Amino acid sequence: MTSDWKSRADAYRAHILAQIPSSWLLPPNFALTTDVRFVAETSGILTPAEVKLLHNDATSLAAAIASKKYTAVEVATAYCKSAAVAHQTTNCLMDFFPEECIAQAKELDAYFEKHGKTMGSLHGVPVSVKEHDGYDVIKVTTSSGYHLSSVPPLPCSRSHSDMCGIKGKPRSAGFLSILEDPASVSVDDCTVVAAFRAAGAVFYCKTTNPQAIMHLECNSFLGETTNPFNTTLTPGGSSGGEAALLAAGGSVFGIGSDIGGSIRNPCGNCGLYGFKPSAIRLPKGGNFSGMPGQEAIVGAIGPMTVSARDMELFIKVVLDTEPWKFDPSQARMPWRPEEVSWIGGDKPRIGVMWHDGVCKLQPPMARALSQAVDKLRTAGFDVVDYEPHNTAEGWALLKRLYYTDGGERVKRETAKTGEPILPLTQWIMDGSVDTPAIDVMELVKTREAFRLDYNKHWEAAGVDVVLCAPYPGAAPQLGTSKYWMYTAIWNLVDYPGGVFPTQWSVEASDAAEGPREYLSADDKMVAEFYSPEKFANAPLSLQVVGRRWEDEKTMEALKIISKVVRS
Amino acid sequence: MTSDWKSRADAYRAHILAQIPSSWLLPPNFALTTDVRFVAETSGILTPAEVKLLHNDATSLAAAIASKKYTAVEVATAYCKSAAVAHQTTNCLMDFFPEECIAQAKELDAYFEKHGKTMGSLHGVPVSVKEHDGYDVIKVTTSSGYHLSSVPPLPCSRSHSDMCGIKGKPRSAGFLSILEDPASVSVDDCTVVAAFRAAGAVFYCKTTNPQAIMHLECNSFLGETTNPFNTTLTPGGSSGGEAALLAAGGSVFGIGSDIGGSIRNPCGNCGLYGFKPSAIRLPKGGNFSGMPGQEAIVGAIGPMTVSARDMELFIKVVLDTEPWKFDPSQARMPWRPEEVSWIGGDKPRIGVMWHDGVCKLQPPMARALSQAVDKLRTAGFDVVDYEPHNTAEGWALLKRLYYTDGGERVKRETAKTGEPILPLTQWIMDGSVDTPAIDVMELVKTREAFRLDYNKHWEAAGVDVVLCAPYPGAAPQLGTSKYWMYTAIWNLVDYPGGVFPTQWSVEASDAAEGPREYLSADDKMVAEFYSPEKFANAPLSLQVVGRRWEDEKTMEALKIISKVVRS
Repeated sequence: MTSDWKSRADAYRAHILAQIPSSWLLPPNFALTTDVRFVAETSGILTPAEVKLLHNDATSLAAAIASKKYTAVEVATAYCKSAAVAHQTTNCLMDFFPEECIAQAKELDAYFEKHGKTMGSLHGVPVSVKEHDGYDVIKVTTSSGYHLSSVPPLPCSRSHSDMCGIKGKPRSAGFLSILEDPASVSVDDCTVVAAFRAAGAVFYCKTTNPQAIMHLECNSFLGETTNPFNTTLTPGGSSGGEAALLAAGGSVFGIGSDIGGSIRNPCGNCGLYGFKPSAIRLPKGGNFSGMPGQEAIVGAIGPMTVSARDMELFIKVVLDTEPWKFDPSQARMPWRPEEVSWIGGDKPRIGVMWHDGVCKLQPPMARALSQAVDKLRTAGFDVVDYEPHNTAEGWALLKRLYYTDGGERVKRETAKTGEPILPLTQWIMDGSVDTPAIDVMELVKTREAFRLDYNKHWEAAGVDVVLCAPYPGAAPQLGTSKYWMYTAIWNLVDYPGGVFPTQWSVEASDAAEGPREYLSADDKMVAEFYSPEKFANAPLSLQVVGRRWEDEKTMEALKIISKVVRS
Repeated sequence: MTSDWKSRADAYRAHILAQIPSSWLLPPNFALTTDVRFVAETSGILTPAEVKLLHNDATSLAAAIASKKYTAVEVATAYCKSAAVAHQTTNCLMDFFPEECIAQAKELDAYFEKHGKTMGSLHGVPVSVKEHDGYDVIKVTTSSGYHLSSVPPLPCSRSHSDMCGIKGKPRSAGFLSILEDPASVSVDDCTVVAAFRAAGAVFYCKTTNPQAIMHLECNSFLGETTNPFNTTLTPGGSSGGEAALLAAGGSVFGIGSDIGGSIRNPCGNCGLYGFKPSAIRLPKGGNFSGMPGQEAIVGAIGPMTVSARDMELFIKVVLDTEPWKFDPSQARMPWRPEEVSWIGGDKPRIGVMWHDGVCKLQPPMARALSQAVDKLRTAGFDVVDYEPHNTAEGWALLKRLYYTDGGERVKRETAKTGEPILPLTQWIMDGSVDTPAIDVMELVKTREAFRLDYNKHWEAAGVDVVLCAPYPGAAPQLGTSKYWMYTAIWNLVDYPGGVFPTQWSVEASDAAEGPREYLSADDKMVAEFYSPEKFANAPLSLQVVGRRWEDEKTMEALKIISKVVRS
C-alpha cells in the first residue's frame, strides 16, 4: 500500500490480464476495428466447433449439453476463451478464473457420466457475474458473535454472502479501497449464484461496474469498459462489463443489478435482453445496492441474456429454489405466469410513450419506436398513446433519495486511496444533501405520494404495459450518459421493466434534427450529442414496463412484443 | 387556540362525551366495580334483544343480518349503545358518530329490501377503527399540483387518505397538535375502511391510541384508556382503545396496527384475538406508522376480533378487493391458505419459547403457557423447545431504528401545544439518537444481518410456528408496560404473529416467586411488578408466530392451536 492508487490499480489490471493463458492472447499486431463483436470468432483462438457453440442461448446450450451434443468442458473452454478475448477488446472483466471453471466443468461431466443425468437445468452453462455489491461480509455466525457496535455486516444469502458474490472472489463496487479490503472477499456464494451453482452452472469471471456502481457507463479505477458494437461508445452501466461481455460473445447468461437502469441501460446499449424485476422479487439479501443500507430506492437483481426465454429461465431457476426460505428480505412470490390476463382480452394493450416529457428521443431511437408501433398495429395490437407523468419532479426526488448521505460514503471510500471521484460519479451526487433523519422521512413520504399518484396515472391510462425507449438514443459516447429517466423513473415507482433488441441500428440516414424548441436543458444536451456518424453501428433497443409486482405480465408482454417487432 | 393545551384537550374530551345521547349515559350513581366488561349488558341502556345480539362474532353477526334475523339498524343501535357505555367506563373513544352510523344502517336495510341481497360479506357489521395515523393528507391530485418543496403528503389509499382514516373524521396520532391541524381530517376513506365499507360495514367510532402511538398502553392528551377486565390495569397499546372497546362488548370487529406489539399486546391484555401480518401483506398506503416516512421498521395493519375466524374474514375481505391495484406499496400476495403445508405432516410442529432469554414470565403467564403445552401434547402435537435468540441485541437495535430522528418529530409536535412528553413516550425515545443518514444505512444493514441470522436460527429449529407469551405477564398496571420484546422482536424480523385468549386468568393462587437470580434488569423489574392481587381478573393470552410472509400458515396454526388449548 505504499505506492499510489494508480500504480496499485494498474497492478490489479495486470493481474487480471495475467489470468489469461498466453495462447488466448490476441497477437500484438491483431487488427481491430471499432466493431469487436466477432473478434473471438475470427481470432483463431477458438476452434470452429467452439465458435459454433457460442451461437446458442442458455436454454439451447443447456439442452445441447443435456443431450451430450457438447460436454461441459467444451462449453466452458469456449466461453473462457471468448471472455478472454472480450476482455482484451473491451476491458470488461474484473476477475477471471478459467482453470477453476474448467475444473468445475470436468466434475459436471463426470457427474453426468456417473449418474446418467445432469445436475440441474443449467448443467454446464457458464454464468458471468457483475462484480459488486458492497464490501461487507456478514460477521454474524453465532448468537454471541452478534455485536451492534461492530461494523454492521451485509447479509445477502443463505450462506453469509452478498449480492453477486462468488465464494472466495473479490469485489470492489468500483472503489480501489474496497478491492483492497480483505473483508471484500465473499465468504460464500450469494443466493443467486448458489441457485445457479446448484442447477449446474459454472463460473469463470466477474465483470466490471463503474465507480460507486452509479454511472450509466462503466468507468472506474480499472478504466473504461467499451461497447463491442463500437468501442468509441459506452456499453452503458452500471452492469456494463456484463453487457460488453455478452455482446462480444463471451457469455450467454449474466447476472446484473439495477437501481436506476443498470440492467436495462447496458442491455439496451449492447443489443441484449435484460429484465429488472420489482425490487424484492429476486433474492439479494437485503435492500442493498451501491449504497448498502440505503433503502429509499431499492435495487433489483436480474437477468442479462441473449434471448427473451433465457430471462425467464433465470428467474425460474432462482425462484424454484424457494429462496425466501433462506433470504427473508425477498417476497414469497413464486413465478406464476399462468395467472397473467390481459385487459384487452387475448393480447396485451400497449401504451406507447413517445418521449418522457423532459427529453425527446434522438432520431434513430424515435424511428425504432415508430417502426415497432407500426409492426404491432399491423399485427392487430391495441397500441394507445401513453402520457409521461411527473418526470422532472421524479428526477429531483430520486437525486435526493439515492444519496441521503450527500455522497459521504463515496467521499470516504475515495479518500482512503486518493483515487479521484470520477466526473459521472460527481454528476449523480450533485444536488444530493446530507439529510437529517427527520427529513429523510419526509422524502420517503414524498416518494410514497409520488408512487400513489403515478399509480393513478397508470390506472387511468388503462394499459397492460408501456412500450418506450430505454434511453433517449443508442449507446452514447464515453462520458456523456447524463440522462437517466427513461429507466430510473421505473425504479422510483418500482415497476418491473425489460429491454429487447430490435433488428434496427443507427443509420447514416438518421440525420440530426438541427436546432428546435427544447423541452428542457437535458433535451437540448441529448439532442446536441447526436450525429449519426458518432453512433455508427449502435443497436436500437426498446423497453417494456409493467406495474409493480406484475413481473409475470411484463415478462409475457415483452416476449410477445419483441417477437412481433423482430419478425 | 388561546387557552392552554389542557383546557383544549378537556374541551375535546367533553365534545366526545357530548356525542352520546343522554339516554345512553350511565346514571351518575351507577355502581362500578373494576370489572366493567358487562356494564353495557346490565345497565338497562340496551334492550334484552340488543344485549343478546352482542354475543355474536362478526361472522355470525353478518350471517344473522343476511338471514334477516337482525336488521342493520338493530345491530348498529346495539353497538353504538354498547360503545357509548364502554367509553364511559374505559375512556376508549376519540370520536363517536352514532347518528351517521344508524343512518348508514338504514340505507343498508333499504338496499337489502330493494335488491333482495346484501351489499357484501360485512353487510351491517359495525367496524371500529383505531384513530391514528399521521396527519398529512395527500395533496397530490394533478401533475402540476405536485411540488417537492411542499410538505410531503402521506398517501395511503386509492382515494387520498391514510392508515385507518375514515372520510371526514379527525386523527391525532396521540398529539393535540395534530388533532388541531385542519389537515388531519381524512379527505377520504383509507383502503381498509373503503374495503369494509364496500362490503357493507358501518362505522361509528374511532378509538384511542397513546401519545405518538408508541406505548404498550393507551395514554394521551385524552387521558388513560383502561382495561375492562380490571380498570386499574392497562388495556395495552397502542391499539388500546380498540381492545378496551371490544372487550367491553362495544365492538365486534376492529382495525388495529402494530409496529412493536400494538395489535397483539392489547388483544393479549384484553382476552381478544389479534393478528399482525407481515408488514406489507395488508394495504396501508406506504411504510408509515407512528413516524410517517420511517421505514426501517414498518408497521402492519391487522384485525382485532372476538374469534379466530373473524381475523381471517378481515384479511380475506381486504385482499379480495385486490388492493395492490390501488395501493402500490402493498405486496401482490392473495390469501392462499390452501397452499399451507406442515413440516410434520398433518399438524403444525410447534416450538415453545418458555421465555425470551431476557425476561422470564410472571407466574400466571408461565402457568398458562405450560397448561397450553400440556393440552397440545395430549392432543398429539409435536411440541419442541424453541430457544430465544438475540433478544437483548434486537431491542438495542430496535430502539435505534424506531427513532432515527432521535424523537425530533415527537418534540416538535408536543412543542406546538405545550402538552408534555408523557413518561412512556420518553421511555421509548430514550437511547434513540438523531442519526446521520450514513449511519442510518449502517443500522439498516445491521437489521438485515439480524434478520438473516434470525432466519437461520428459526430454520435450525425446524418448527412451523412458535408458541410464546405476548407479554411477560397479564395486563400490567397503568404506566408500567416497559418491556416490549415478546412482541417487538417479531416486528424487527417482520414475522407474522397472532394472539388468542386462553380460558385462564390470573388466580390468587399464582403466588409471586420472591427474589431469585434475574436474567436482566428488565427481568427483575417485571418480576417485582407482580403480585396476584394487583392483576385480579386479568386474562391470559398466548401468541403464535410464523416466518416472514407465512401469514397463511401462522393463521392456520393459530386457529388449530387455539381450538385445542381452549377445548
